[in-house]
Amino acid sequence: MNQIELTPVLQALRERVLKANLDLPKYKLVTFTWGNVSEIDRETGLVAIKPSGVEYDAMTVEDIVIVDLQGNRVYGSKKPSSDTATHLELYRQFPEIGGIVHTHSRHATAWAQAGEDILALGTTQGDYFYGSVPCTRRMTPEEIAGEYELETGKVIVETFRKRGIEPSMVPGVLVHSHGPFTWGKDGHDAVHNSVVLEEVAYMNFVSHQIRPNIGSMQQELLDKHYLRKHGKNAYYGQ
Amino acid sequence: MNQIELTPVLQALRERVLKANLDLPKYKLVTFTWGNVSEIDRETGLVAIKPSGVEYDAMTVEDIVIVDLQGNRVYGSKKPSSDTATHLELYRQFPEIGGIVHTHSRHATAWAQAGEDILALGTTQGDYFYGSVPCTRRMTPEEIAGEYELETGKVIVETFRKRGIEPSMVPGVLVHSHGPFTWGKDGHDAVHNSVVLEEVAYMNFVSHQIRPNIGSMQQELLDKHYLRKHGKNAYYGQ
Amino acid sequence: MNQIELTPVLQALRERVLKANLDLPKYKLVTFTWGNVSEIDRETGLVAIKPSGVEYDAMTVEDIVIVDLQGNRVYGSKKPSSDTATHLELYRQFPEIGGIVHTHSRHATAWAQAGEDILALGTTQGDYFYGSVPCTRRMTPEEIAGEYELETGKVIVETFRKRGIEPSMVPGVLVHSHGPFTWGKDGHDAVHNSVVLEEVAYMNFVSHQIRPNIGSMQQELLDKHYLRKHGKNAYYGQ
Amino acid sequence: MNQIELTPVLQALRERVLKANLDLPKYKLVTFTWGNVSEIDRETGLVAIKPSGVEYDAMTVEDIVIVDLQGNRVYGSKKPSSDTATHLELYRQFPEIGGIVHTHSRHATAWAQAGEDILALGTTQGDYFYGSVPCTRRMTPEEIAGEYELETGKVIVETFRKRGIEPSMVPGVLVHSHGPFTWGKDGHDAVHNSVVLEEVAYMNFVSHQIRPNIGSMQQELLDKHYLRKHGKNAYYGQ
Repeated sequence: MNQIELTPVLQALRERVLKANLDLPKYKLVTFTWGNVSEIDRETGLVAIKPSGVEYDAMTVEDIVIVDLQGNRVYGSKKPSSDTATHLELYRQFPEIGGIVHTHSRHATAWAQAGEDILALGTTQGDYFYGSVPCTRRMTPEEIAGEYELETGKVIVETFRKRGIEPSMVPGVLVHSHGPFTWGKDGHDAVHNSVVLEEVAYMNFVSHQIRPNIGSMQQELLDKHYLRKHGKNAYYGQ
Repeated sequence: MNQIELTPVLQALRERVLKANLDLPKYKLVTFTWGNVSEIDRETGLVAIKPSGVEYDAMTVEDIVIVDLQGNRVYGSKKPSSDTATHLELYRQFPEIGGIVHTHSRHATAWAQAGEDILALGTTQGDYFYGSVPCTRRMTPEEIAGEYELETGKVIVETFRKRGIEPSMVPGVLVHSHGPFTWGKDGHDAVHNSVVLEEVAYMNFVSHQIRPNIGSMQQELLDKHYLRKHGKNAYYGQ
Repeated sequence: MNQIELTPVLQALRERVLKANLDLPKYKLVTFTWGNVSEIDRETGLVAIKPSGVEYDAMTVEDIVIVDLQGNRVYGSKKPSSDTATHLELYRQFPEIGGIVHTHSRHATAWAQAGEDILALGTTQGDYFYGSVPCTRRMTPEEIAGEYELETGKVIVETFRKRGIEPSMVPGVLVHSHGPFTWGKDGHDAVHNSVVLEEVAYMNFVSHQIRPNIGSMQQELLDKHYLRKHGKNAYYGQ
Repeated sequence: MNQIELTPVLQALRERVLKANLDLPKYKLVTFTWGNVSEIDRETGLVAIKPSGVEYDAMTVEDIVIVDLQGNRVYGSKKPSSDTATHLELYRQFPEIGGIVHTHSRHATAWAQAGEDILALGTTQGDYFYGSVPCTRRMTPEEIAGEYELETGKVIVETFRKRGIEPSMVPGVLVHSHGPFTWGKDGHDAVHNSVVLEEVAYMNFVSHQIRPNIGSMQQELLDKHYLRKHGKNAYYGQ
């Protein structure tokens, strides 16, 4: 069954992916098995991902599956997450990303169900997302009836390309009527962004209840906050 | 007092029912004693159910009562849940179900108090409920003054029959001005659906705050998600 | 300092009052020291109450003060709660009650700040409160400048008398721009009602967000639920 | 590197500042590293503050940095919080304060994002804040492009001066599109006020959902509550 040798690098990848998956219930981002994390080893082009429908309580490193970028399982005995084809499309089209998370976290999902972007209203979002978190268009009946999970990845990519958004600067998206995907330099970082997205999804909901039609924050303030944490002039942290 | 012999099958039923009842506070679906789970053994037509008004902290398997489908207590010394007659009517009329849960979980109850269906707005609901979770009509003064708990069951059944909804495909309902009932293939599965219902009740509340009058999700997306987890072409899980 | 002998009955009273006070943080009804519970021994007319501004973490039975119905401290070295005069007025005017709780629980307080009654929208409220939980009028500048805490009690009593509400059937009130008081047959029961009040305050807030101007539930359903748990025809519980 | 001798007084300052910082996650006021507490020793004019971007789980007293009022690091090896210049401006301009907290607590931040003051609607706020918690104006592009963190302090000071608010009587502010700062007589007290601010931010959001355009509470009631806890006629507590 296993078509590759499990090198120490790939075993470490599986262990990080297990850890990142277990962080989802820790941060209260998932109910039951409604979420998954993957991470890619760009050297080999292999992706470690959560198995489909396995309980977090019982999950061990042996459950973590390795697939190649074409979706072939090359290590592990479990079926990979049903969302695997979405992850792979993002890895193929966004070469700058190293880890991906999908959840149904409550408030990000509520925005996805409303079909609305999450505008940048404050520095909490601006510290991590360089602007709005976009919501995709609805998928067409043909896309849904076709290779649905692959098409989900394609509609995410289309959203970023058409709107001219850099995936490295806006590390997340809302899939219309579904829920959020986030990414990052690895699985851990993608989980971090998933926590931030849920936090701003909640706060921006409340802000809009307090004052409808706020509009985005000032571009200057967004620049300041994003750039003090990212890029060559960053000065936040040790 | 005990009119039947407690077979290993029935003792296992009681133990599952105890476990499922204790899952209600674990998932934060109940305050005090405001909830109950039952499960039926279809071979014998006997139903194990939570006793009335007993604290979860102190509940043991000895407290779980067994009743027949006519409501006669056949095993146990405690009074069964005051909602027993509702459960029994559902078991009699919905032969495909094996477990039932009633709670006053916060957001599902809020929708029941508002007298509104919970529309399917996204895939979280679509993975478990094949469409809206219906809210019953108000009960009549005669129904309330009569065999109230039995009539509660009847108005649930009427809601599904009149609206042509399959109980196995929409495993839950909101009783107007009261709260949710869910069901499933057994008590454990019914609790699972109760968690899902509370989750979508919250998310759909928030989605409607963000965008009033959203309308239901696309039928094609609902079909896709429900059917990838249920029926003969399901491909989710191991 | 101590003007009475601490009988076993009064020591037991203090212990129950300590326990009931410690239940407030357990049920997440208070932040810091923002709450208090008292209980009266109707035989002696003595009231045990929480001391003012003492942290729950450090509170022991020795901190619980005993006062008479005129507000004289007769046992204990601590100053009683600053809300003591409110409690005493309620004990004097509502002879059927045995315990009182005051909190700033989040949603009950939000309704008090909005100056609105909490209508009975569903059976959760109807199981404990026989109708709306009333909100008092604003206090006058004279009442505020006078014996403020005593006047707070008087405005509560006035609310019940003017509106013809039985304190035993509606065991709680919202003081305008302030927060909730609840009561019951003893301190434990008053805490129980405080939990229920917070729960219905939250759910009724959400119900009104979903559907503004709902209006109260049917009187027949309210009768049914309140009376199946209270009075001579009650049939809930063991 | 260390330019001062670490006296017992300064070591005690660092220990209090560590403790106060660790209280932020305890009270659920911060996600990740999004918050910081400082405290000043007015004798020496030295300020102990959290290091930038260090995880709370791993923080020890050795991480706490000491800076002088001009922002020079005089003790410790870590970089101080990126918000240090804001803290120092407040210590320089508000001589009556001894500790400062900054967080992105959810509801206070939501109000800051909405650009709205938090009106005093009830006694919970009135017990700690003598009126509305003000929201600053937006910062200008020049302020943002300049010494941003210092300018943040200046816009806070301007808000209090222009509106004639006493910082000792209203121990907190919302920075527009950013989040809350609170202060107090020391770091512990500033954290206490941060908890209160988040609590009233939530409750006032809910009150406004229940009844838009409530308006502030009566001035007399605000006077009564603030002054029974503060100033020479205070009578709350032991």
